[in-house]
Amino acid sequence: MAKLDSVLACIDFNLDRSVGRLNDLLRIPSISTDPAYAADCRRAAEYLAGDLSAIGFDAGVRETPGHPMVVAHHAGPEGAPHVLFYGHYDVQPVDPIELWDSDPFEPRIATMPDGSQRIVARGAADDKGQLMTFIEACRAFKAETGGLPCRVTIFLEGEEESGSSSLRPFFDANKAELTADVALVCDTNMWNRETPAISTGLRGLVGEEVTIRAASRDLHSGYYGGAAQNPVRVLAKILADIHDAEGRITIPGFYDGVEELPDEVRRIWQDLGFSESAFLGEVGLSVPAGETDRSVLEQVWSRPTAEFNGIEGGYTGEGFKTVIAAKARAKISFRLVAGQDPDRIRAAFRRFVTERLPADCTAEFEAHGGSPAIQLPFDSPWLAAARTALSDEWPKPAVMIAMGGSIPVVGEFKDRLGMESLLIGFGLGGDAIHSPNEKYEMSSFHKGQRSWARVLEALGGGR
Amino acid sequence: MAKLDSVLACIDFNLDRSVGRLNDLLRIPSISTDPAYAADCRRAAEYLAGDLSAIGFDAGVRETPGHPMVVAHHAGPEGAPHVLFYGHYDVQPVDPIELWDSDPFEPRIATMPDGSQRIVARGAADDKGQLMTFIEACRAFKAETGGLPCRVTIFLEGEEESGSSSLRPFFDANKAELTADVALVCDTNMWNRETPAISTGLRGLVGEEVTIRAASRDLHSGYYGGAAQNPVRVLAKILADIHDAEGRITIPGFYDGVEELPDEVRRIWQDLGFSESAFLGEVGLSVPAGETDRSVLEQVWSRPTAEFNGIEGGYTGEGFKTVIAAKARAKISFRLVAGQDPDRIRAAFRRFVTERLPADCTAEFEAHGGSPAIQLPFDSPWLAAARTALSDEWPKPAVMIAMGGSIPVVGEFKDRLGMESLLIGFGLGGDAIHSPNEKYEMSSFHKGQRSWARVLEALGGGR
Repeated sequence: MAKLDSVLACIDFNLDRSVGRLNDLLRIPSISTDPAYAADCRRAAEYLAGDLSAIGFDAGVRETPGHPMVVAHHAGPEGAPHVLFYGHYDVQPVDPIELWDSDPFEPRIATMPDGSQRIVARGAADDKGQLMTFIEACRAFKAETGGLPCRVTIFLEGEEESGSSSLRPFFDANKAELTADVALVCDTNMWNRETPAISTGLRGLVGEEVTIRAASRDLHSGYYGGAAQNPVRVLAKILADIHDAEGRITIPGFYDGVEELPDEVRRIWQDLGFSESAFLGEVGLSVPAGETDRSVLEQVWSRPTAEFNGIEGGYTGEGFKTVIAAKARAKISFRLVAGQDPDRIRAAFRRFVTERLPADCTAEFEAHGGSPAIQLPFDSPWLAAARTALSDEWPKPAVMIAMGGSIPVVGEFKDRLGMESLLIGFGLGGDAIHSPNEKYEMSSFHKGQRSWARVLEALGGGR
Repeated sequence: MAKLDSVLACIDFNLDRSVGRLNDLLRIPSISTDPAYAADCRRAAEYLAGDLSAIGFDAGVRETPGHPMVVAHHAGPEGAPHVLFYGHYDVQPVDPIELWDSDPFEPRIATMPDGSQRIVARGAADDKGQLMTFIEACRAFKAETGGLPCRVTIFLEGEEESGSSSLRPFFDANKAELTADVALVCDTNMWNRETPAISTGLRGLVGEEVTIRAASRDLHSGYYGGAAQNPVRVLAKILADIHDAEGRITIPGFYDGVEELPDEVRRIWQDLGFSESAFLGEVGLSVPAGETDRSVLEQVWSRPTAEFNGIEGGYTGEGFKTVIAAKARAKISFRLVAGQDPDRIRAAFRRFVTERLPADCTAEFEAHGGSPAIQLPFDSPWLAAARTALSDEWPKPAVMIAMGGSIPVVGEFKDRLGMESLLIGFGLGGDAIHSPNEKYEMSSFHKGQRSWARVLEALGGGR
């Protein structure tokens, strides 16, 4: 324990320096979904590989057809387990930029009225701040002990926000190198400020873009209005058909294989003291908008959904244009739960759209990633060790929860590399990831580093 | 007739020069709906006032809260009628710019395989080319005879494509100056290449923009998807409700006051030899998309419609963003027929939307212009004179038709100034107004000038 204490003290002592390193990373606008930022994505990868080499990892930037990966290895004590840590260095786009209070890529430390501090920048919480908590824990271990308590591989991708299209081929091509005893994934939230959480359930995701076309060109709505197909109208009609009045998805076969939540799990979730009104109230809402017969936690954790993430058609600029557009398009995502197959859901959606196309209309589809849901076994020894380690660091014991978001890599770890994942993250619900003024609490960044030090030590069997 | 013949010969002789003058006007990007082009709108107005002064008009640019008007007066013979000519110098935006084959504001003359020529530019047909046909006819009259056969007032506005918000106050403030015996409006089409047309019915227009808001910020669709209201989904649902399966508008009271087409008019339209398949086929369509129990001519001429002209919400850029947007908006227009009141239709639409708003959602409305439909009397003496004059110029006799588009000024002429309007234009269905590669046939421009010379002479009683 003396060894761990000195590592924790090292983390405390170097907090300012670790914030400085995080800020360097946050300044790189590594937006993976926009090709204009490809060079910045590479720069972020190179920065991280350089930093890991400096700590003592055998680290490198690895090419893919998309943005590069970072892979770094460090040996562990004889007989210690091999853990693979995962994070992503890419970030979401920043629009609407006008709603940011400061430059998204010029990180600032804001001090709140209660004295707490936060790091404000795109990627602060998702996922640069989170991935640096692990790297800083390794740095402290190395500085204090000269080694790490486990054999550690660090794997960082740059396409998490844009579909992770290089992940599968990369895993297939580097299977032996990347397969460890367990994966550690730091891209999730705590239960609340005082309570760390390990996510044992994760919804999957199917991303789709559909473009509806009708006339061969934009038409004047005076000359043609009434007689010409309007793709915006066709699209609205199809989208409106996807949910029924009770909020259920009407796509045939959508719920095939979806199981009801076990009573035991429902009880655990009830005991979490989750406040539906606080959850919704934080973002200006008051009434759950999902399936009318489900609790909010079920709606976001254990039930599949269809969300319309973007829609565009016709004239959307200043003023008015009396046009009937030649095309309209929408970006749609489905959150999946255990039992749903991404390929079958995608096919069912496409059939649903195609069957509803009126005469003269065509639909073109583009796939934007797909991954099944994940359900981790509750009796995993890794889980038990990590729970204890986290409970030692935070005011309240660690809880096991589920996640509404999708982390495709977790499915790939399981399918391609046969690894279970421990999902441990230090984000908070109000971090505004994917939104303007994204932030990461200083306490998340600081105690996150300390948490990883404890977890590494625990997984290494040092307790 | 010798006088008219010399005027027509003068038009023929000066065709190239008149094209040059039109090109000068077309080069000015007078997009009225986008504030960035306000100075260009003024430049177009000043160009036209200068040209009219050069011809001998008492012409000036007149201020409004929006884009300026051009008003020009020229005396006529003792006892001759006073005609007011209307056109608009503003043009539509040019997007999608990538579909233009050349710079929209660098006019080019294209020669087609059949030897016909066309002028390609934004505004070539709508409405710069059309308004210049009248100005060139006046120029030729002045050159050949030293005067005009009628007292002529020319009134040109710069807000036709953006709601004409200055029209009413301007008419009210200048009622005596602008009231003439009849208005001549050149913003419509011929029946076909050989057959000139006078439009006696015009649909009205109500333009609306609605913005639906839910959460106080954009949300991550993983964390909130299933529980949070999605404005794109709410908007799609409301829009989808507006039409029933037969293509009728479901807004309560929408059809109040709408009368069935008289049998006689229906017969006249049947005799036009209109080809539904050709009309639709020209723009890549084959099946009428409107009310299932109406002919295409009824759908576009005599039935009211609701069209969705633009929709936007969430992430619409490259790639994918798993966001639930805080807002979504749509631009919607209603084409009105005789008996429908724009204000009541607008109110009924807003009520329709508001009644469908789920909890936590708000709707914000913005009005984008409104005008009632117009129905001109069939027994007007002006109509008879103009029909004969047009029939003399073109291969086939002039026909009386209706128009699907809205020309708000015609309603204002009637309501504010007590004037009937003669709607005579030389556009063609394939002119692609409001679309990429807008064009105006050289024959329209040339014979349009000749037509106005004949009509002016006929209205002046010179035959």
